[in-house]
Amino acid sequence: MNVVKNADIAWTDLGGGVRRKVLAHTKDGMVVEVNFETGGVGAAHSHPHVQCTYVQSGEFVFSGGGRDYPVKAGDTLAFERNETHGCVCKAAGTVIDIFSPMREDFL
Amino acid sequence: MNVVKNADIAWTDLGGGVRRKVLAHTKDGMVVEVNFETGGVGAAHSHPHVQCTYVQSGEFVFSGGGRDYPVKAGDTLAFERNETHGCVCKAAGTVIDIFSPMREDFL
Repeated sequence: MNVVKNADIAWTDLGGGVRRKVLAHTKDGMVVEVNFETGGVGAAHSHPHVQCTYVQSGEFVFSGGGRDYPVKAGDTLAFERNETHGCVCKAAGTVIDIFSPMREDFL
Repeated sequence: MNVVKNADIAWTDLGGGVRRKVLAHTKDGMVVEVNFETGGVGAAHSHPHVQCTYVQSGEFVFSGGGRDYPVKAGDTLAFERNETHGCVCKAAGTVIDIFSPMREDFL
């Protein structure tokens, strides 16, 4: 079991009003907090890791498969492996992305 | 991509001051919201699914491997496959559990 206190982790600035904290992880799974300023963009991308996303706060529009999905705090998303997805932040907030296996490229 | 609006899902009462909403899921991953009253217990258990947990609100003590881990809003946990874990709620709140693959037993 790996337990991470949020306050112990510093933000990594990704530019463009987006910053990230890599939180608890094992080889099998990883929790990542991503904070967006209004207008911040998560460019469309894909990866072989399973991803689920919980919207902790704010408002976002996620896109994939030619469709847009407006979401707000409490809403959730699940992506297939290698499914292309991206988002635009409409009102500043935070999403919790969980990946399986862990994202070695984030360490 | 599967997107679920939190407000569209009804609670499932698990008894003992614990209730659950199964949120977005694909075959590869599933997001589950679990709300606890103070004193609610998640009995020690294990499963072959990868699990990561984000504490959305409240205070909990998770246990595993003979140790206790007090956590609160914003803190996170990651469990290995088949790792035994349980929790007790110390102040009413909600955790977001994410499983990979999805939990067919929750549907």
